[in-house]
Amino acid sequence: MLPEPPSALSGGLGASRADMAGPWRRRLLSALLGLALWGFAASAGVQKSIRLSVQSNPSVAQGNVPAPVYQTRYFSQQVDHFGFDMDLTFKQRYLVSDTHWSKNDGPILFYTGNEGDITWFCNNTGFMWEVAVELKAMLVFAEHRYYGESLPFGDQSYRDSKHLNYLTSEQALADFAVLIRYIKENVPGAWKSPVIAIGGSYGGMLAAWLRMKYPDVVVGALAASAPIWQFEDLVPCNMFYRVVTNDFRKSGSGCSESIRKSWEAINRLSSTDEGLSWLSTAFHLCSLLKTKEDAGTLKTWLSETWVNLAMVDYPYAAFFLEPLPAWPILSVCKFLQDPKLPDKELLNGIFKAINIYYNYTGDAQCLNISQTTTGNLGDQGWSYQACTEMVMPMCADGVNDMFEPQTWDFELYSDECFKQWKVKPRPTWITSIYGGKNISCHSNIVFSNGFLDPWSSGGVNYNISDTLVAITISEGAHHLDLRFSDTHDPPSVQRARNLEVYYMKQWIRKYRSNN
Amino acid sequence: MLPEPPSALSGGLGASRADMAGPWRRRLLSALLGLALWGFAASAGVQKSIRLSVQSNPSVAQGNVPAPVYQTRYFSQQVDHFGFDMDLTFKQRYLVSDTHWSKNDGPILFYTGNEGDITWFCNNTGFMWEVAVELKAMLVFAEHRYYGESLPFGDQSYRDSKHLNYLTSEQALADFAVLIRYIKENVPGAWKSPVIAIGGSYGGMLAAWLRMKYPDVVVGALAASAPIWQFEDLVPCNMFYRVVTNDFRKSGSGCSESIRKSWEAINRLSSTDEGLSWLSTAFHLCSLLKTKEDAGTLKTWLSETWVNLAMVDYPYAAFFLEPLPAWPILSVCKFLQDPKLPDKELLNGIFKAINIYYNYTGDAQCLNISQTTTGNLGDQGWSYQACTEMVMPMCADGVNDMFEPQTWDFELYSDECFKQWKVKPRPTWITSIYGGKNISCHSNIVFSNGFLDPWSSGGVNYNISDTLVAITISEGAHHLDLRFSDTHDPPSVQRARNLEVYYMKQWIRKYRSNN
Repeated sequence: MLPEPPSALSGGLGASRADMAGPWRRRLLSALLGLALWGFAASAGVQKSIRLSVQSNPSVAQGNVPAPVYQTRYFSQQVDHFGFDMDLTFKQRYLVSDTHWSKNDGPILFYTGNEGDITWFCNNTGFMWEVAVELKAMLVFAEHRYYGESLPFGDQSYRDSKHLNYLTSEQALADFAVLIRYIKENVPGAWKSPVIAIGGSYGGMLAAWLRMKYPDVVVGALAASAPIWQFEDLVPCNMFYRVVTNDFRKSGSGCSESIRKSWEAINRLSSTDEGLSWLSTAFHLCSLLKTKEDAGTLKTWLSETWVNLAMVDYPYAAFFLEPLPAWPILSVCKFLQDPKLPDKELLNGIFKAINIYYNYTGDAQCLNISQTTTGNLGDQGWSYQACTEMVMPMCADGVNDMFEPQTWDFELYSDECFKQWKVKPRPTWITSIYGGKNISCHSNIVFSNGFLDPWSSGGVNYNISDTLVAITISEGAHHLDLRFSDTHDPPSVQRARNLEVYYMKQWIRKYRSNN
Repeated sequence: MLPEPPSALSGGLGASRADMAGPWRRRLLSALLGLALWGFAASAGVQKSIRLSVQSNPSVAQGNVPAPVYQTRYFSQQVDHFGFDMDLTFKQRYLVSDTHWSKNDGPILFYTGNEGDITWFCNNTGFMWEVAVELKAMLVFAEHRYYGESLPFGDQSYRDSKHLNYLTSEQALADFAVLIRYIKENVPGAWKSPVIAIGGSYGGMLAAWLRMKYPDVVVGALAASAPIWQFEDLVPCNMFYRVVTNDFRKSGSGCSESIRKSWEAINRLSSTDEGLSWLSTAFHLCSLLKTKEDAGTLKTWLSETWVNLAMVDYPYAAFFLEPLPAWPILSVCKFLQDPKLPDKELLNGIFKAINIYYNYTGDAQCLNISQTTTGNLGDQGWSYQACTEMVMPMCADGVNDMFEPQTWDFELYSDECFKQWKVKPRPTWITSIYGGKNISCHSNIVFSNGFLDPWSSGGVNYNISDTLVAITISEGAHHLDLRFSDTHDPPSVQRARNLEVYYMKQWIRKYRSNN
């Protein structure tokens, strides 16, 4: 069996990656796949994970929470809100549940869809379904343009940079604002309903930005695990990997140090054909490693796996990116206790560790280094967004983190983007349009971040004002607070959810007193 | 001599107007030329009027105020901020004066350029030049894209709807935000300077919207005579003409009633060739009226003249749209005291009245109904903007106002726009993106309006909150407050300017206490 070429890696810059030096490949993968990894990986897994979540959720089992039942609707949106030459429209999908809505009075909780099929986000944001009962709220989940069924040019939407030109956060926010206006004007009883934006990850960024740019449209926003400051030099570029490293450091003695040592061990082994062969066998790879570049791909894949584990380090068994046990990093670290082991023994431990992630069910016959999740649907969209607006600098030094050193080189990043998409990223645009750290004049946004989540490094982790509030979840991974509640939830996420509801009620109350 | 065809009318929808029924032609003219009329008409006259203003301004004569001396600079802007397919840039012109600026400390007063050559606005906004001394401020006047020298595609900028696609308020605001960031990052000592947006008319709308959409970029905004509510049904469509009517009603007994009677008088006379001939002679027209349609053009021209007079009803002699005496409507109304006169005598009075406007100097040999100001540069741009975003409904009933009845028919408006520009206006977009009347969550905007100014009908004339403040100028025409101070200024405008400075100081103080 011939190994797959490195260019067959899922997502990110695709074929062009093969041209890049090792560390660069990984850095770009991290930068480009970062959120996509969450979004699309989640996309792939959620349909199953929802059922798993719902089934394993005691309160659901007790019938306290409604099952995710919704109506699917479509709204005609301008393809280009910001220009008038092209007067085309497309159908934006949105999902509505008004089972618990108190007509004329109850609020609307509006999920600002991110980079994936909206049904997955809808089914996976259990918090909204639970809160709908308490707040007597209507739920709306709006799909982000260019994802799921909301394709401006149908199957031609990703054809070239011309067709992709309308895939921006600004267009998506305009979609949301126009859709909310439509709902309020056309759904009987909705005219006076206060609307709250809710989103996680990139969806959380959109929720916050919707409140910032259209404060007349939403009375407040819950931005869960939203790295709105992961741009330019707003936060040090190495913070992301330091958070990942901390998760492993805290989860077992010798754990992060073992991973740090693994890179050189792989480098040493991959310098010979025998070593490459040994690595292929030791990691049970589906495709044999044949070159040093292949070994680079292996390292990239491992890096992403550690990042993924940090994102889904949930307190209960879940199928989010992959089916995993509770606190998966704890399980992983059991195999990584002695960083001083000889290379092959160390790497055998690394294999056992990642086998937790890729083969918890025991069904895998071999491991495929071309993917890090059970699916890779839709990652093209985020790759394009990362190559235009969403330029998130990442770096590692191998000292304060457990990763191979990699610097941030925007020029190389830009060149790769141009090769792939025929567009050039504008690294300062997001801070210019959304204000960077100067957001204190806005109001009514709750930023929640879990300390286990690497994306917390780019999030808002301190109160900016009385109404721009940070909620930190010490035992939380990537937007744990938005998931269905679970008996294994740590107190920190329970407290976070309570606080989030408290602020929502405050916004609603204030809105009602003014209207 | 053959009369010019109706399609030779300056500005607005141009040739397509010839196809329209009489009232429609006027309504569209009003809607399309309204702001343009101010902007471009002003543009044409300002170069002269500045000198006039400066020369006639006592404080300037005494050397208290700096003469408008500035540096001209150019900044490379993205043609399309909101898309990445086209990576072109253009040179945006901006003017800078730092004579009185207190480096590291003093504020920046930033004029958000509207639909015309920025040098005209720069020279004609005397208030900023006067305040610069008091606030130790740097002045920046930024040209609006597609006007003056800031042409995204050079002389091809107006070629077709494809080239015009980037002429929107959103792109202009992004230009301003990016330029301000550039100035703060690159002008030594500017990094900590609070920036205040200032603008008049459409420029005032942009100043307010800049604060709303980019509150991190400007600490506050002075929006003078900014009709941000002249959209959709936010204000009754007949308010504009009612204000004009009031100005005439208050300026002389029988005045507005004489004008109201004039339309039917013209209709009666224009029903015969002899009557048309009489009208041509009586109005000293350069081109003979030959058809009823030509008489319609005459009525349109008269309507616009009354509107213009209301806009420039200043308390001192000025050359703004045309050279005029102080309180020009008072002079006009001296010829319009008896509405019961027979048709020809009534219209002789109308001629004498408009002769004040068109021939105050006595130099005109004949009157040209194809123009209402001394120049018509650049009106194409506003016509396009009115046919895309800036849809301002206007109507008249002839009962509560002195104009011929005309209803608001969006479909016809849209059809005419498509004929002219190959674009369709989106009448709800401006309220969707800028919030319509729901702007209470914003802050630090002063809306000033003169009660004599017809555009005050679409302005913010009441305090919305402690920091969204309305200043009304009972004796003020179109942004009188932004002009150089004059010994004939009524107390209401002196008070307005004092209040405006008070609020600016408050914003600056608050900024400094937070930074």
